[in-house]
Amino acid sequence: MRAVDELIGLLGAAHVLTGADTGPYVTDWRGRYSGRPLAVVRPGSVHELADVVKWCAARGVPMIPQGGNTGLCGGATPDETGRALLVVLTRLNAIRAVDTGNDTMVVEAGCTLQAVQQAAHDADRLFPLSLAAEGSCTIGGNLATNAGGTQVLRYGTARELVLGLEVVTPQGEIWNGLRGLRKDNTGYDLRNLYIGSEGTLGFITAATLKLFPRPVAQCTALLALPSIEAAVAMLARARKGFSAALTAYELIAANCLQAVVECFPEQRLPFDDAARAAPWFALLELSDSESEAHARERFEAVIGDALEAGLVSDAAIAASATQSRALWRLRESIPLAEKAYGKNVKHDISVPASRMAEFVATTNAALQAAHPGVEHVIFGHLGDGNLHYNVACGTAYTEEALLARQSEIHALVHDRVHAFGGSISAEHGIGQLKRDYLPRYKDAVELDLMRRIKAALDPQGIMNPGKVLPG
Amino acid sequence: MRAVDELIGLLGAAHVLTGADTGPYVTDWRGRYSGRPLAVVRPGSVHELADVVKWCAARGVPMIPQGGNTGLCGGATPDETGRALLVVLTRLNAIRAVDTGNDTMVVEAGCTLQAVQQAAHDADRLFPLSLAAEGSCTIGGNLATNAGGTQVLRYGTARELVLGLEVVTPQGEIWNGLRGLRKDNTGYDLRNLYIGSEGTLGFITAATLKLFPRPVAQCTALLALPSIEAAVAMLARARKGFSAALTAYELIAANCLQAVVECFPEQRLPFDDAARAAPWFALLELSDSESEAHARERFEAVIGDALEAGLVSDAAIAASATQSRALWRLRESIPLAEKAYGKNVKHDISVPASRMAEFVATTNAALQAAHPGVEHVIFGHLGDGNLHYNVACGTAYTEEALLARQSEIHALVHDRVHAFGGSISAEHGIGQLKRDYLPRYKDAVELDLMRRIKAALDPQGIMNPGKVLPG
Repeated sequence: MRAVDELIGLLGAAHVLTGADTGPYVTDWRGRYSGRPLAVVRPGSVHELADVVKWCAARGVPMIPQGGNTGLCGGATPDETGRALLVVLTRLNAIRAVDTGNDTMVVEAGCTLQAVQQAAHDADRLFPLSLAAEGSCTIGGNLATNAGGTQVLRYGTARELVLGLEVVTPQGEIWNGLRGLRKDNTGYDLRNLYIGSEGTLGFITAATLKLFPRPVAQCTALLALPSIEAAVAMLARARKGFSAALTAYELIAANCLQAVVECFPEQRLPFDDAARAAPWFALLELSDSESEAHARERFEAVIGDALEAGLVSDAAIAASATQSRALWRLRESIPLAEKAYGKNVKHDISVPASRMAEFVATTNAALQAAHPGVEHVIFGHLGDGNLHYNVACGTAYTEEALLARQSEIHALVHDRVHAFGGSISAEHGIGQLKRDYLPRYKDAVELDLMRRIKAALDPQGIMNPGKVLPG
Repeated sequence: MRAVDELIGLLGAAHVLTGADTGPYVTDWRGRYSGRPLAVVRPGSVHELADVVKWCAARGVPMIPQGGNTGLCGGATPDETGRALLVVLTRLNAIRAVDTGNDTMVVEAGCTLQAVQQAAHDADRLFPLSLAAEGSCTIGGNLATNAGGTQVLRYGTARELVLGLEVVTPQGEIWNGLRGLRKDNTGYDLRNLYIGSEGTLGFITAATLKLFPRPVAQCTALLALPSIEAAVAMLARARKGFSAALTAYELIAANCLQAVVECFPEQRLPFDDAARAAPWFALLELSDSESEAHARERFEAVIGDALEAGLVSDAAIAASATQSRALWRLRESIPLAEKAYGKNVKHDISVPASRMAEFVATTNAALQAAHPGVEHVIFGHLGDGNLHYNVACGTAYTEEALLARQSEIHALVHDRVHAFGGSISAEHGIGQLKRDYLPRYKDAVELDLMRRIKAALDPQGIMNPGKVLPG
């Protein structure tokens, strides 16, 4: 208990948690990982954090950064040894500055994504990062994992929304890199090295974020599509027709929509029976900088052409903000509907858009050959080449039998992703969940470069050990 | 000569140059730096390059990567010792693949930027990076220095145009990271670490680049502005009104335009005398994805409002592609006109847009106080917060006297840039020119992190030594 007393000396008793008080922090959001930390600490300032880090560095105590604990790969969950300190950054939650003249804001890592969005909105600006967990995830966690979400097509991943960082190194030094500059070529790009490193190189404590003008009007439609080839071709048309005004293009397989309306009877499909029989759907969103009328005219022209060309078999265009929200709700309810139908084997993959249709067709076939009767649960951010390609029991397996084959199914899907030049983790990161896949799919030279950087910046190996880098 | 014979054994005599044959490679474009290499080698493939690198690594021979030799900071020029091998990548000039379905292309480092633009154009796509040296600079050099140019406002710097890289490490290993994925969260961001590292961490040998739809219509205007505050306010209006269709916003001080028309009498200002008396001008460009008519209507509406509000005192809107080119030519002729008027002291700086007007006013005043009568030569990419803030003789000094005060003037300007939260190298990089400024302006923790990364990836210190990192 000597260690805990020392930590209390640094942070005060209220912010050093042990035993049962650590409960909310030690299990990951999906309930897949659970561990036991030395303690949970909640520093109240960057300097308090730096003091804690120096304390750890002097004693070789491992540290695990945690934000809102909504990660999907176990990246913020401790192991069972009881050796590591779980460092929760939610008290670093100040919006330090909003500079509308520079279209930037400086926020601390512990701000929820929603608080960041709101602060931008209050300044008549848009901070476009948006994802399901936004009410509880923190911007620090979003940056540590280079979060994606629904607006990547237009605004990029978290990485592309950041101009500067403040970081506490594993030695407890504070790097102030909170620059608000669009252009700065004065040395190595440390910012992007920390973004996406999942807390293995240091603590991101604050960031200078880019702000954008808020769209003047938005249009949303749900498209019924005869094939995935048509979905990909429609994406190309939307990209060409809308250019940067195309802000979302989400693919949804018919069985996913079906599951949503069965699971949530208050939700309805905006289609007649013929259109409902389509195998694929896409949620299309345009964000216009001019006017409602301009947005609608442009939107309807592109969709009208696609209908005429037979690329799209039917289109439900939202006539109001309420209808638009209802369409988005269909999309956002898929993970919940999935859950209601039992566990499935999940993949967060990306492949080049030009190979997407072939990837899905041949991988579906390979899965059916190996596991006849499994159900394909496919949806995701087609505009970014990113699908949540999940595999459910179908008529093939009980839940237990499916999960017993999880590794086998992962290997089949990931091997194919790799063969198609894709990524086995498009937006969720590596954490501990996918760490041991890296040697199979990552170029050996690249993995060696990663290890060398890790050793250079964290020679003691105390920053979130066991995450990202395979042992 | 043993070494040269061995190199000839690897590459053939035609591609190992010594003595006078090294002439075109050993002096930088501005003629500021000159050196003497062990030899100049021109490998013809990535594997030949890897062999050369292994040869160097085994013998501790330093290597200097060079593309089109158009860099502005001496980053590709050898020192006088005759120890280093100058490795010219211009023979690696294949366009390896164009994938219109994925909006990507894979190009080798030695392709000129113009060849890359052309290959994109031939596929009915846009590769937006554009800068004065595009006919001779190479894409490898553009990536090594994270080049900027005139389209950064919309498309970002070189960094933001890249999805994947192929790199030869200082040990001669080949990292194949040529992924064409919009989303890939499987480890550290090595891509952005190599981009902008100016050849100090390895050789970029190929890249997967993003392609964009070509604009359907473009509008260009030269605006006369009553003040720099008005120029900044007009930028905010253009950003709001045009959103992502705003592709350029270049600031030009009146004396720069004056110099151009004096120096090139065939060029004319499209203004009457009253408008010509304005102190500032801005070149504004909109790129539209819809139609010529839509572009023009939108363009004229925003400019009309700004005229009415008194932000803009006059506006010359190009009525044709020829007129548009003539306006761009005025902007592009500034460096040549500058040159014709003698040497000046150059700065490539950025500050946050919100502080730009105050920075210019107070720095001009400080310069006049310290060096009464010097002339301010100010132009650049205001849309990115990046100015070429140059200082000419004016009535104060002869050229010789001005250059004798160069360090003093640099220190004055850079100290102020630093105080305004800006960068002393917005787009040109560090090379050897600004290397020794870094300890004064760079956070000590950041510089230490850079040194640790350099030591981890190039422990022998043989990759472009003496560049970027201060000794």
